[in-house]
Amino acid sequence: MLIAMKTTATREQIEAVKEKIFSLGYTPHVIGGAQRIAIGITGNQGKIDPSHFISMGGVAEAISVSKPFKLVGREFKPDDTEISVNGNLIGGRELTIIAGPCSVENREQIIEMADILTSLGIKYLRGGAFKPRTSPYSFQGLKEEGLVYLEEARSKTGIHIITEVRSEETLPIVAEVADIIQIGARNMQNFALLEAVGGAGKPVLLKRGNSATIEELLMAAEYIAHQGNPHIILCERGIRTFETYTRNTLDLNAIPVIKKLSHLPVIVDPSHGIGIWDGVPPMSMAAIAAGADGLMIEVHSNPESALSDGYQSIKPERLKNLLKKIGLLADIMNRSVNLQTNEVNEKIYTT
Amino acid sequence: MLIAMKTTATREQIEAVKEKIFSLGYTPHVIGGAQRIAIGITGNQGKIDPSHFISMGGVAEAISVSKPFKLVGREFKPDDTEISVNGNLIGGRELTIIAGPCSVENREQIIEMADILTSLGIKYLRGGAFKPRTSPYSFQGLKEEGLVYLEEARSKTGIHIITEVRSEETLPIVAEVADIIQIGARNMQNFALLEAVGGAGKPVLLKRGNSATIEELLMAAEYIAHQGNPHIILCERGIRTFETYTRNTLDLNAIPVIKKLSHLPVIVDPSHGIGIWDGVPPMSMAAIAAGADGLMIEVHSNPESALSDGYQSIKPERLKNLLKKIGLLADIMNRSVNLQTNEVNEKIYTT
Amino acid sequence: MLIAMKTTATREQIEAVKEKIFSLGYTPHVIGGAQRIAIGITGNQGKIDPSHFISMGGVAEAISVSKPFKLVGREFKPDDTEISVNGNLIGGRELTIIAGPCSVENREQIIEMADILTSLGIKYLRGGAFKPRTSPYSFQGLKEEGLVYLEEARSKTGIHIITEVRSEETLPIVAEVADIIQIGARNMQNFALLEAVGGAGKPVLLKRGNSATIEELLMAAEYIAHQGNPHIILCERGIRTFETYTRNTLDLNAIPVIKKLSHLPVIVDPSHGIGIWDGVPPMSMAAIAAGADGLMIEVHSNPESALSDGYQSIKPERLKNLLKKIGLLADIMNRSVNLQTNEVNEKIYTT
Amino acid sequence: MLIAMKTTATREQIEAVKEKIFSLGYTPHVIGGAQRIAIGITGNQGKIDPSHFISMGGVAEAISVSKPFKLVGREFKPDDTEISVNGNLIGGRELTIIAGPCSVENREQIIEMADILTSLGIKYLRGGAFKPRTSPYSFQGLKEEGLVYLEEARSKTGIHIITEVRSEETLPIVAEVADIIQIGARNMQNFALLEAVGGAGKPVLLKRGNSATIEELLMAAEYIAHQGNPHIILCERGIRTFETYTRNTLDLNAIPVIKKLSHLPVIVDPSHGIGIWDGVPPMSMAAIAAGADGLMIEVHSNPESALSDGYQSIKPERLKNLLKKIGLLADIMNRSVNLQTNEVNEKIYTT
Repeated sequence: MLIAMKTTATREQIEAVKEKIFSLGYTPHVIGGAQRIAIGITGNQGKIDPSHFISMGGVAEAISVSKPFKLVGREFKPDDTEISVNGNLIGGRELTIIAGPCSVENREQIIEMADILTSLGIKYLRGGAFKPRTSPYSFQGLKEEGLVYLEEARSKTGIHIITEVRSEETLPIVAEVADIIQIGARNMQNFALLEAVGGAGKPVLLKRGNSATIEELLMAAEYIAHQGNPHIILCERGIRTFETYTRNTLDLNAIPVIKKLSHLPVIVDPSHGIGIWDGVPPMSMAAIAAGADGLMIEVHSNPESALSDGYQSIKPERLKNLLKKIGLLADIMNRSVNLQTNEVNEKIYTT
Repeated sequence: MLIAMKTTATREQIEAVKEKIFSLGYTPHVIGGAQRIAIGITGNQGKIDPSHFISMGGVAEAISVSKPFKLVGREFKPDDTEISVNGNLIGGRELTIIAGPCSVENREQIIEMADILTSLGIKYLRGGAFKPRTSPYSFQGLKEEGLVYLEEARSKTGIHIITEVRSEETLPIVAEVADIIQIGARNMQNFALLEAVGGAGKPVLLKRGNSATIEELLMAAEYIAHQGNPHIILCERGIRTFETYTRNTLDLNAIPVIKKLSHLPVIVDPSHGIGIWDGVPPMSMAAIAAGADGLMIEVHSNPESALSDGYQSIKPERLKNLLKKIGLLADIMNRSVNLQTNEVNEKIYTT
Repeated sequence: MLIAMKTTATREQIEAVKEKIFSLGYTPHVIGGAQRIAIGITGNQGKIDPSHFISMGGVAEAISVSKPFKLVGREFKPDDTEISVNGNLIGGRELTIIAGPCSVENREQIIEMADILTSLGIKYLRGGAFKPRTSPYSFQGLKEEGLVYLEEARSKTGIHIITEVRSEETLPIVAEVADIIQIGARNMQNFALLEAVGGAGKPVLLKRGNSATIEELLMAAEYIAHQGNPHIILCERGIRTFETYTRNTLDLNAIPVIKKLSHLPVIVDPSHGIGIWDGVPPMSMAAIAAGADGLMIEVHSNPESALSDGYQSIKPERLKNLLKKIGLLADIMNRSVNLQTNEVNEKIYTT
Repeated sequence: MLIAMKTTATREQIEAVKEKIFSLGYTPHVIGGAQRIAIGITGNQGKIDPSHFISMGGVAEAISVSKPFKLVGREFKPDDTEISVNGNLIGGRELTIIAGPCSVENREQIIEMADILTSLGIKYLRGGAFKPRTSPYSFQGLKEEGLVYLEEARSKTGIHIITEVRSEETLPIVAEVADIIQIGARNMQNFALLEAVGGAGKPVLLKRGNSATIEELLMAAEYIAHQGNPHIILCERGIRTFETYTRNTLDLNAIPVIKKLSHLPVIVDPSHGIGIWDGVPPMSMAAIAAGADGLMIEVHSNPESALSDGYQSIKPERLKNLLKKIGLLADIMNRSVNLQTNEVNEKIYTT
């Protein structure tokens, strides 16, 4: 249930509603919208009687919620969520471009990539320090050492860092370095980890599991929100189907569906979504055209020698061309790609 | 194997190569490209010795083909195929927009729709007269009567007709009315029907089966081409996955993959692909952005009362708005949407 | 709706109910059970008012039916259907064993196989004369010539023939030879063909499409039954999933589910279901243990040189061993495998 | 690579081979077979030159391994693994029956269930104290309190406890109570947790993820084995497909496939595999007939009021009948179900 307060509701009236909710044994969640405050209720089994609230001062409506997800649902919060990362908004008008290698491979590589991306105006660097791999014998990432290099890349360039957390145990050190903590597809229903990042105080990028339904993705986000962290970015990265030509089947249907069901921003990872480097640019364009709030793209200066996922990585030059086309597409979508440096924008937008 | 002829090859040299192929017990297929002629060979089991051809007059190269599909593959024919329907090209620079109701429901409905679509500049009307349905108790289409109404809609407006063939038996009457014959998803591996349309002398729109791999789709097209009909339009319309929120999972990955493997045009049916009317516009945009050659969209004046697929049909007004956005997107993609009447273009492109 | 007649209902009372149904514009289907007659109604849109029937003479009950399938559903006909093929019952207490090669390859092969199978007591020979193949360049079967050899195998040994129909056009010649007509997985929703076999006067073995739901399989059977042919054997043969180690994923869950929903017999094709020859015996055992009414197994004397599906075919010796184990399992399941010749039974049941 | 030692190899020769492996920078794994010792090598990238080993004393062969899994593969260890739980062997001739409720709901329930199961001769009680649930608002288990009740159930009846671990953090308390630690399907690729249970010193039951391939399941087991814990029981519990009538699609094909690829025991969870209580007995029979080493079945005295998974739980009486049939089937499979108490065996095997 959701208690929508009047625009004129006072602080005391809001507190009174929260007290009432606590007194019934449930948990209140205050949700600030552009216009007015609403108070979500969780912790109930079955329906709550609206008469508890409807005659209280400042209450406009008691709305029963039909979906299993609450805090992340549009019923609870109709306005789009915008997540601020040092003043840069994810989920607003501006499209978010995240780029970088699959793994942090060594110091030089990640510093060089941060330089290149910064010169293209890109504000977010991805790179895995802890790599979950299907085989215990595959490269598992540089771990703590990789985090040090990411930190250095940020200090040097000011780029924001997004990197994956692999376990509760290493969450503290990842959270210290990451501007955005990534939960990988295989951990989407690692509920202990979801709860832990729910308390980590950093925005979270939550990747859809390769056989997770849209509803399961939203329920996983609900676990994070339920721990008090509403700064969640959903990421569509392809689902597992019978098709074997591509690594996954990028489910762009999920974009309009999630946008209807949830207020959270959604970005798309076309690199895992198709798994073939020359399919990345068309699928990037398709994702933005479908309404995604941004992209996460694997980029590598020398894909042939990448320690992981080289086949799906594009080179920086190709990214530069793609950004140009995305800039044009953004205009049509009433979005923008405010790449950071004027010099680059100039280079990119003039041909 | 593919015998690439020199640009200077004479008619006699081409005939000599064909004779040689026949003499080996195989079948030659002359494939005219923009620059030069190539001659494909089918009918062999295993590899053919290139030395049969390499020293013949006019022969540039004998290229062995690594894919199971031949006539529809880019290895055989590198240039994009453009299919002419009364002078309108499908697969060229211009995007193809096909629209109309799922089923022909009655005379008034289909004539009215042809009028509306024509006024929007749309050149292709879809509408099923023979409807394959999961249940024998569901509406199976108006059948012959429906074909009569489609014919009348064309006579009145000049719009081209695309309609589905359900069986070999009814193919002749469908082929008489249809400008493009549609093979539905459930019949994608009805090989007898594929062979029959291969001889029907009309362009064919071949829908991907809901669990067909991309390779199986291309092999199904190969059945048609093998019967001498190269005028094939492939249609991605969603595949069956575990996700139940949407009717199907639209596999836009298939667009860049097919474009690499085959020279045939590919259009996308977002209506079946997502199965939810308000998801159709974003998925239409995504399809074009991914590189599709056109769209097939279900449109109905009164979706609530449609005899089939109402939930995924959009109203004409919404189509009009969508066309406007597609026009803008086409520019970025170096494509165009030359909607037919100037008056409409004007209406559409000025807001 | 289903009108259950009293056990004492007279022929006239039954006729009166049928007349009433016709007069309402619907179609009656008389269904004979062990105890009493019921009359199914199809052709209605929406619910029928039971008061039309409930006070008529001889009527016990008017039962509304909740499932989309009717004639093939247990609600319409609670008793198991047993199909007689020259006096041998499929779907009764006795398990049905069908065996033979994927394709009829030549006269000697099929005659030899009929001899071997007959010597093992097996009553049904499978073998494709018309083979639907993914590629137009693959062996498509011996066609009419193959039918001649099947006919000869039957004349010589008395074994029953089950062979696939590929198209409406060739149905008459297939129906003349086949004791049971097979509809292949790719044609499960070729509704024109389903309707045609519905009128062909022979039992039909209907294979589940590789991405068909159980409900779609039952609706496909309903098409056949709706044309007046109730002699339908359903066949589970594996569905398409993400797993690539096996050719398909044999869905044995379907056995108890179909048994609950439908009165039709269900047999299992473990050869296509797993696609690996040494997986065929365990999956055969599993199918019978799950409650299947029989098996269809690919057998080849020389699998390495089979023209199709050799990798999933077992040799006759292995079949013989398997039959022994199935005989023991049948006892536990309160079933039997009455292999025809005493001599063989003896060989098989004594070790 | 696998170094197979001669049967006559001395302890010193074995040590020398291990030293050699260490000196090359790799890790040796001594694998004791019934006949002779082999030493597996992991840690290499690419092929190892066999000439390092082939002339060493006591070495019979240096076998290169073609599969990505090593320690859990049959190439490394041809003999079936038998896991001892207080002297009871899992994976040997005797079938393992695990039964119990989805969740520990309260003290009385779990003690009563332990009593019932013990009286049926069952040696393993399942019951979740920590329950991973799709929704944060669903019952998450009694947690520590549930472990106390499980401990009490064991003390009282001597039954062995199998319960799920949900996180690395709670592993120590789970490992203290559990005789077998369960890794749930959602955590199959939670590699941090796999590594942690690899060091927990208790046998592990590893459930296949709902979209995990067989190879991925084996690789997940490899993570555990790689940490030094070879006591792994694999569990097939159904995969996610397009079929919606059943909760999952039980993939019994996986049984013969895993048996060929791996030496580990495999048990089947038919309750999750079909998700419908009356489908559990037939699928239990099918699993054993396919070659499974045992079953894990959800049993509840009052399924209608179960806090989780009631719809797929069977009552104890039904389990008793099923055990009777499984006992008969075991005989055919050359297996046994040595249920513990004579009194019960008597009741069960006499009808």
